[in-house]
Amino acid sequence: MTDFWKDNPRLGERLAKVAGIMDETIRTDGFPLADAVSVLIDSKGKMLRPAFLLIGSDFGQGPGSARAKKLVQERVLALAAAVELLHVSTLIHDDVIDDADLRRGKPTLHTLFGTKEAILAGDWLFSRCFTLAAESSDPQGARALSRVIAAICSAEIRQDLDKWSYSTSVRAYLHKIAGKTAALFTLSLQVGAQEAKAPAKQTEHLRRAGYDIGMAFQIIDDILDFESSLGVMRKPVGKDLAEGLCTLPLIYALKEDEVGMRRLIAAIRPDGAGIDQGAVAAVIERCMELGAIESAKKEALRFTDRARSEILRLPKGPSRDDLAWIAERLLNRDY
Amino acid sequence: MTDFWKDNPRLGERLAKVAGIMDETIRTDGFPLADAVSVLIDSKGKMLRPAFLLIGSDFGQGPGSARAKKLVQERVLALAAAVELLHVSTLIHDDVIDDADLRRGKPTLHTLFGTKEAILAGDWLFSRCFTLAAESSDPQGARALSRVIAAICSAEIRQDLDKWSYSTSVRAYLHKIAGKTAALFTLSLQVGAQEAKAPAKQTEHLRRAGYDIGMAFQIIDDILDFESSLGVMRKPVGKDLAEGLCTLPLIYALKEDEVGMRRLIAAIRPDGAGIDQGAVAAVIERCMELGAIESAKKEALRFTDRARSEILRLPKGPSRDDLAWIAERLLNRDY
Repeated sequence: MTDFWKDNPRLGERLAKVAGIMDETIRTDGFPLADAVSVLIDSKGKMLRPAFLLIGSDFGQGPGSARAKKLVQERVLALAAAVELLHVSTLIHDDVIDDADLRRGKPTLHTLFGTKEAILAGDWLFSRCFTLAAESSDPQGARALSRVIAAICSAEIRQDLDKWSYSTSVRAYLHKIAGKTAALFTLSLQVGAQEAKAPAKQTEHLRRAGYDIGMAFQIIDDILDFESSLGVMRKPVGKDLAEGLCTLPLIYALKEDEVGMRRLIAAIRPDGAGIDQGAVAAVIERCMELGAIESAKKEALRFTDRARSEILRLPKGPSRDDLAWIAERLLNRDY
Repeated sequence: MTDFWKDNPRLGERLAKVAGIMDETIRTDGFPLADAVSVLIDSKGKMLRPAFLLIGSDFGQGPGSARAKKLVQERVLALAAAVELLHVSTLIHDDVIDDADLRRGKPTLHTLFGTKEAILAGDWLFSRCFTLAAESSDPQGARALSRVIAAICSAEIRQDLDKWSYSTSVRAYLHKIAGKTAALFTLSLQVGAQEAKAPAKQTEHLRRAGYDIGMAFQIIDDILDFESSLGVMRKPVGKDLAEGLCTLPLIYALKEDEVGMRRLIAAIRPDGAGIDQGAVAAVIERCMELGAIESAKKEALRFTDRARSEILRLPKGPSRDDLAWIAERLLNRDY
């Protein structure tokens, strides 16, 4: 398990169970790449989505027999495994798409076994995720899951098709990251709550909290692409810019000085192919001068504050504390 | 619609409805590549899987109100669209894997929009297929669908990992093609029958018929890779051999003359990379001499005969005739 949970053993232990179900799942039906995919689970990420699902489920389960409660617990763990398997399958496909060599410090599946195996392994995990969802939940959960995946794929395609075209619409940007990042956070909290039959009002607070956390998280991620001084980078600075993506800081900068910014942007890929790193740095510098990064931080803070308020509307208790704890860990990054 | 159905307007009309639902599905949720994927549906293939599903459903629906029957009909059409969307999504991923330029005479999605878009479009269709399945059927259908997809992916990975290693096990070969081809034929007939609440005995005959048709179909397909004289090829002769696949004719040839055949096979890729087309031709010629292709034809005929018997066990009527008609069209290819 990653260090992320070391201060929260209560959640950490439940997530270890989820990881166990994931490992069991990939070892069924003679899946030929079980060992290779298992490595991805062992060297696991933060398992945020299953954590949200487990927390969501804590708000249900009022009265009911011990047997009924146990059944709900089992279903919730299986659904949590399903959302994380889905996440792993998208990572595998992402690595093929980006032709990445390493994932979580280990060689990626397609470098080990080839593109064909990696695409098919992603598809296989995808199917297993649906099997788990269809087996473990009322039909609602499986339907919601498949709809969210479609939305994520759609948002990713849209983002890719929009590369190198620079819109100044904050609304379009927010819509895009809502589909890309916030959707699965929202879904996880909501499906957990629904599976455990949480009251409708609490389910709604959880859903909104998931959305706000996801939005703030993605905006912060996009801001980190512009900030180099603090050494908290998970990826090289300017990577989004070099890929032709238009994120929130750039949108605010375009709003301040559209003509000047478009001139600077055009220099990033002057010949339509190679990237001029100096031009990338110039765009970042100008965004800072124009206060665009500060504006983006304000927007992130707006969602962070909204998330905090939604969380405070939930009933007091360890599960609310857990959700607040994750939100602060994710959103108080040193940017 | 392809010419395949022109002599069977009754099925052709129902499949046109299925194509309509598919087109509607890909135009939901602002999917950015709807037009491009729609071309794949318009220039459509034989739509065998949905045809099987529709035929399977004909064996149910005894008593019941007109309203209940209409609901079943709608669900069956939606499920038929789901299995074909699944098929289209695997075609899109296959084209990425094979780096194919054309599909059904049109440029492939990844040549038009890039690998990333094609992988994501396949994933999107995959999700939509599950949404349709989860919305339209009892949970059983969605579960069965996801399990079969996992089995297909697993079989494809296994086949790819086994490339350039030549087993002489007929059983392992049959197991492989059962997962790869027969599984979805079987599932389609079975899910259609279950959705329409067909009697268990008829569902079992349908399931078996689907399996036998699928097995015969794949063996014939593998034989066609060895036969050049008749001009009915859908792909260049020897393509499987040049890719390192070990199919039934080769297995029979290895059983007859393992040492000699292994020497010939080794010459296909003498340096481990480039393919020697002359060596491919020599392998084919020797397989013919050894009677291996005739043996494979006998095995195909065994499954064809079994399929015919299973079909004859179904109640007489236009739906049984339809199934028999498809089986003969598929399995009486001029090989």
